[in-house]
Amino acid sequence: MSTKKKVVLAYSGGLDTSFCAVYLTRELGLEVHTVIVNSGGFSAAELATIEARAYELGSSQHEVINVTTRFYQQCLRYLLFGNVLKNDTYPLSVSAERMFQALALAEYAREHQADYIAHGSTGAGNDQVRFDVAFAVIAPDTEIITPIRELKLSRQQEIDFLQQHGFEMSWEKAKYSINKGIWGTSVGGVETLTSHEALPESAYPSQLQRQDSERVEITFEKGEPVALNGETLDPVALIQQLNELGAAFAIGRDTHVGDTILGIKGRVGFEAPAPLVLIKAHHLLEKHTSTRWQLLHKDYIANWYGTLLHEAQYLDPVMRDMEAFLESSQQHVSGTVFVQLRPYRFELLGIESKYDMMQSKVATYGEENNAWDSRDAQGFIKIFGNQLKISASLNG
Amino acid sequence: MSTKKKVVLAYSGGLDTSFCAVYLTRELGLEVHTVIVNSGGFSAAELATIEARAYELGSSQHEVINVTTRFYQQCLRYLLFGNVLKNDTYPLSVSAERMFQALALAEYAREHQADYIAHGSTGAGNDQVRFDVAFAVIAPDTEIITPIRELKLSRQQEIDFLQQHGFEMSWEKAKYSINKGIWGTSVGGVETLTSHEALPESAYPSQLQRQDSERVEITFEKGEPVALNGETLDPVALIQQLNELGAAFAIGRDTHVGDTILGIKGRVGFEAPAPLVLIKAHHLLEKHTSTRWQLLHKDYIANWYGTLLHEAQYLDPVMRDMEAFLESSQQHVSGTVFVQLRPYRFELLGIESKYDMMQSKVATYGEENNAWDSRDAQGFIKIFGNQLKISASLNG
Amino acid sequence: MSTKKKVVLAYSGGLDTSFCAVYLTRELGLEVHTVIVNSGGFSAAELATIEARAYELGSSQHEVINVTTRFYQQCLRYLLFGNVLKNDTYPLSVSAERMFQALALAEYAREHQADYIAHGSTGAGNDQVRFDVAFAVIAPDTEIITPIRELKLSRQQEIDFLQQHGFEMSWEKAKYSINKGIWGTSVGGVETLTSHEALPESAYPSQLQRQDSERVEITFEKGEPVALNGETLDPVALIQQLNELGAAFAIGRDTHVGDTILGIKGRVGFEAPAPLVLIKAHHLLEKHTSTRWQLLHKDYIANWYGTLLHEAQYLDPVMRDMEAFLESSQQHVSGTVFVQLRPYRFELLGIESKYDMMQSKVATYGEENNAWDSRDAQGFIKIFGNQLKISASLNG
Amino acid sequence: MSTKKKVVLAYSGGLDTSFCAVYLTRELGLEVHTVIVNSGGFSAAELATIEARAYELGSSQHEVINVTTRFYQQCLRYLLFGNVLKNDTYPLSVSAERMFQALALAEYAREHQADYIAHGSTGAGNDQVRFDVAFAVIAPDTEIITPIRELKLSRQQEIDFLQQHGFEMSWEKAKYSINKGIWGTSVGGVETLTSHEALPESAYPSQLQRQDSERVEITFEKGEPVALNGETLDPVALIQQLNELGAAFAIGRDTHVGDTILGIKGRVGFEAPAPLVLIKAHHLLEKHTSTRWQLLHKDYIANWYGTLLHEAQYLDPVMRDMEAFLESSQQHVSGTVFVQLRPYRFELLGIESKYDMMQSKVATYGEENNAWDSRDAQGFIKIFGNQLKISASLNG
Repeated sequence: MSTKKKVVLAYSGGLDTSFCAVYLTRELGLEVHTVIVNSGGFSAAELATIEARAYELGSSQHEVINVTTRFYQQCLRYLLFGNVLKNDTYPLSVSAERMFQALALAEYAREHQADYIAHGSTGAGNDQVRFDVAFAVIAPDTEIITPIRELKLSRQQEIDFLQQHGFEMSWEKAKYSINKGIWGTSVGGVETLTSHEALPESAYPSQLQRQDSERVEITFEKGEPVALNGETLDPVALIQQLNELGAAFAIGRDTHVGDTILGIKGRVGFEAPAPLVLIKAHHLLEKHTSTRWQLLHKDYIANWYGTLLHEAQYLDPVMRDMEAFLESSQQHVSGTVFVQLRPYRFELLGIESKYDMMQSKVATYGEENNAWDSRDAQGFIKIFGNQLKISASLNG
Repeated sequence: MSTKKKVVLAYSGGLDTSFCAVYLTRELGLEVHTVIVNSGGFSAAELATIEARAYELGSSQHEVINVTTRFYQQCLRYLLFGNVLKNDTYPLSVSAERMFQALALAEYAREHQADYIAHGSTGAGNDQVRFDVAFAVIAPDTEIITPIRELKLSRQQEIDFLQQHGFEMSWEKAKYSINKGIWGTSVGGVETLTSHEALPESAYPSQLQRQDSERVEITFEKGEPVALNGETLDPVALIQQLNELGAAFAIGRDTHVGDTILGIKGRVGFEAPAPLVLIKAHHLLEKHTSTRWQLLHKDYIANWYGTLLHEAQYLDPVMRDMEAFLESSQQHVSGTVFVQLRPYRFELLGIESKYDMMQSKVATYGEENNAWDSRDAQGFIKIFGNQLKISASLNG
Repeated sequence: MSTKKKVVLAYSGGLDTSFCAVYLTRELGLEVHTVIVNSGGFSAAELATIEARAYELGSSQHEVINVTTRFYQQCLRYLLFGNVLKNDTYPLSVSAERMFQALALAEYAREHQADYIAHGSTGAGNDQVRFDVAFAVIAPDTEIITPIRELKLSRQQEIDFLQQHGFEMSWEKAKYSINKGIWGTSVGGVETLTSHEALPESAYPSQLQRQDSERVEITFEKGEPVALNGETLDPVALIQQLNELGAAFAIGRDTHVGDTILGIKGRVGFEAPAPLVLIKAHHLLEKHTSTRWQLLHKDYIANWYGTLLHEAQYLDPVMRDMEAFLESSQQHVSGTVFVQLRPYRFELLGIESKYDMMQSKVATYGEENNAWDSRDAQGFIKIFGNQLKISASLNG
Repeated sequence: MSTKKKVVLAYSGGLDTSFCAVYLTRELGLEVHTVIVNSGGFSAAELATIEARAYELGSSQHEVINVTTRFYQQCLRYLLFGNVLKNDTYPLSVSAERMFQALALAEYAREHQADYIAHGSTGAGNDQVRFDVAFAVIAPDTEIITPIRELKLSRQQEIDFLQQHGFEMSWEKAKYSINKGIWGTSVGGVETLTSHEALPESAYPSQLQRQDSERVEITFEKGEPVALNGETLDPVALIQQLNELGAAFAIGRDTHVGDTILGIKGRVGFEAPAPLVLIKAHHLLEKHTSTRWQLLHKDYIANWYGTLLHEAQYLDPVMRDMEAFLESSQQHVSGTVFVQLRPYRFELLGIESKYDMMQSKVATYGEENNAWDSRDAQGFIKIFGNQLKISASLNG
């Protein structure tokens, strides 16, 4: 029976976490359980390659945890309800995904009574905060080990270390750092390190494949996407299908400039075809089916929901309160949105909904109507202007 | 000496206000002063045509009031400071412009001691509110006359009336109703009356003229656009030049769905090349130069500034308070933004600014830095997560 | 069988609605159903007197609808969850109550297929808006009749009219207009018509009866008051009991200055012992059991919930969204609050709760603790100040 | 010429900073400049005693910096403009004051080219954050030394250390920790360490001296208090005078429960007679002179201004933006407020202002008026309810 202490390592197959796997086993003498949490960004083939490498490097146990459906149910649907684009641009692709990877890891560590839990983040960015916070809240008795953050080795030092322990793998340095997920793929490097240039087209994983145009119909039921071109789909499957379709048109690319949790500014490119199309389509449907007050207050709630999610506050109870608000607001956000996909862009054509407030029999914009007459309008405006008149009469 | 009472009429040269001119003169026996307020949408030729028609219809005095610079100084710059797009889409083109036309008319009426002030709006939409409110606040002792709202005549009845009084003008009914202004041109009719279709390309006044691409540099000084491709320009001239350039690329078109002041939903197409490019460029510059707290709270203020402006509340003192906030927030929003114009779309390439917080020597994203070490990061996250840990420990 | 058309009249027993009853019967020839909605302000004796008078004046059918429990369930609990005091002062006593009276009346009219529905509000204040809006939304096919608003009779003219029809009742004019309800009693007149004086003590229905002091314990369960001094009570009963207790100490009196829906300012005195004590006690409990983010965002939601309720927007779906937020936020707002009642005031002594975040084992304020050490604190603050340092270094 | 390095020490005369003075001199061999920043809490006699002790303990140079006027001009007036009471209770007495002490210290250190800057805060609370952040931003090249936070000595260990170095002072341990300032005095200890009890009366520095009642008139000019009972006073002098007057009535006492910057909950008693009376009086004046929109949005801004000030973010540029908003909002907040002071409480009697919107000739609450008639009201409400009617007709 092993007397070694057990560590759960967030393993991605890359150089940093491969270094961690060997370091934890050989230097710290721990029994390493490598865990990869798939939130929709990994194919079966990629997962198999990563598993093979994990065992090769000495993992005692390798686990793949698929959280894609949970990620959608507990997070992405609320981002969609809220039309959340951080700084009006970024669908929070990585910010959201990392949180759910951290939660799954922490729960795994707790269930398997691990002595330690390890991740490969550096001390520079947001990911360490998401991992550390989730671990401390979910598995408060499990100690956190962060070799990359602590040792600050260079890329070459890590490769040398692996070679010294007999691992002669090839570690090509990609020009861009890519993080692929169901809610968007981030692309960082070269141009994003400065402020004045955009990423070149070639930096994006998806390349333009279609020069034509395609009309799609997206059906929402209480705010959730449930059908594509009339075909009923599970929301996760719908997002994946729409990602593929949109990627062929090179839709949903942009560069996000934002504040990290550590207070410095960062810049990252991304491609997120389905999130962008779904958020804009959903928002249009809401403009037809929600009241003015709902639209105004949803903005406030959604802006903060996105901000707090980005800043590793997903576990704060206020997030549940906001989700309750957002869920309630979707009661009548049902209908179909028509979208024209084109190279590099898309157009919202229109919507159809039984809750469309533009099609009410009570009153219709711009037409003579039975809801009120000119005398009513005159009275309305007179009283509507009361406070301005009083204020102006006193304040000069 | 005339014993007739004097009415100031908001005159646009169209059928409705032409009817009003004759109705006020002939039926009500008033001395009509026709006034057209140009907020950047009319050319000199158009204004001359309108003036000729005004006198032909019996105007005693025709005035053109140019408020374009005032409109920019007292309104558009704040919309730009706030990156205001109503419902994330509409730059408030007509909403803002109509308010400043109303203010200029009311002031003219007050200065010329008019007995009445008249406009040609119907009882169905927002414009009547903007006119009535501005008139009542600025010229409280001048009575408002609204023949179109009151009489509810059909188009043909108006034409017949004009013919009966000897005016045999040709009044072609345009398929789309167009309102041209410096901050955007609105396009309404046919498709916008229902919810499911977009306007056809042909409905837009500007047509695509260029299939190539052009890189432009827009320089901002304290939030205001002051140079285009290095050439210093007055902001109004810059907007006009950028409108022309963008229109050739068919940039800045979209459909706005929103709530009228009267509580019903409306839909309108628009093209607004310069507003869209400037707002997005300005916003990008702010992401580099403003703090996280500024960006968060600016959103709140700007969302409300746009909403209240749309809803005819420009004269509420709270608008001055918000302008003070927005103006203060622009202290360091200076620098140049690089934009690539392409057919139907544009890309933000990047920025250059001495206030760029990404280029600070204190710390740079993703790099090893001297601002903090791994031990600092560990301490930061530990304390940063305190409340979540306490909350989770109690709440299960 | 009667061929008369049926009108449902909101009847309170006062001069105005008594006039309406006779006017509707005699002048308009309608079959009048008098309905009084009790939301906790009327005693059984008062209701009996009103019923007798209704029949005496010619009511065909008199109904008492008790909505107190519904009022609590669908409104007051949310006001408590939100600690709602309009302008930091007023618990929205009448604003809330009138809305629920209007809803009950509209539902009654719809169920009984009334041809008309009538209320006795004037054209000057908020109540007409609450009645008209509720009626139009709930019973859109029932026409609204408002004799008082339309006829603008003087008090004496109403009395004369009743006498002409043989009703020689005595209608004493009270110096102050009183509206009694479970969530507070409003007092208007004399001093409240100007700005510079407070109401005299004698104007308040309750008079100080106790010069001593009493300690009470209020127990909340998920934000709702469920026990007083350890005795389990229905929330409605608890409020009533606390109103009596607090009234003996003359607690909860103040003057509210606010904006009416019609845009003018109004001033009204009130006494609301239970609402004030409960709201402040509940708020204290939340400070101990809710996170910083919950407290911050609850304020926003609650401020708007109160504002929209006041402004007759209770039926807007956004109110349901806000209620969902507020309900979710109460998950751990359970515990007991200790309050000392004294003449004219009360003190919050403290609380006891298993969710008290001050008593967490994770960390305790001001004490040496195991949650972090001085090195952690140093790291925290260093990174916490990053953006300020960057901003200052660039902006001088 | 001294070759010793120079340290600026925030010195208060208490045991902790006295320990620091000796520790820095004797153990670290530094030239100590003791600095005390008076923001209105110290008398001349107290300052003299502290100065004597500073020199006795080995200070090379002792400085008293009086920031009271600056504190008012750059902070307190905005708290008053915003009616800021954290969690509806606490005027941010210590939070605000400590920030301005930190700023003055940092500026002194920078001007005197100190090598180090030291404070005596522990690692448990908010003060260390305010000091460290202000020092790092204002004097980024000066290293921070925090002996108390680092060494974590017990009270007795500190006394022993001082004795070993020959300082036989008497260090009585007060039962309560008191921090006196112009914007309120905080009282911590015993009862505030748990959640269930209030401080006893004897714990407060001020004791009830008057059983009678007194009417005072406070005159505001653009939001600032400028006269007391008709006597023109500098705002600082006015606050001090009102503090004395209110303290005799034991007014303005309460217990604050709040979130520290470090994420844990804390509880503290305070007495703040002038802040409470001024804030409530100022707020009442605003209810009469500000528009509904100003009151609503001021709440948002002020709530955040207080929160960010509390959390050591005073130097974020967003605070200047908020100050610009608040300053603008005070344009017409001029007039006199009548307040009745009584034992333990005060009543707002009313106001007098030429900007009182209740006294406008345009319209007056509850009276028949010329501003609108019943037909106007009917039209207003009909259109006002449009969206609710549409929404209800579709959503069932």
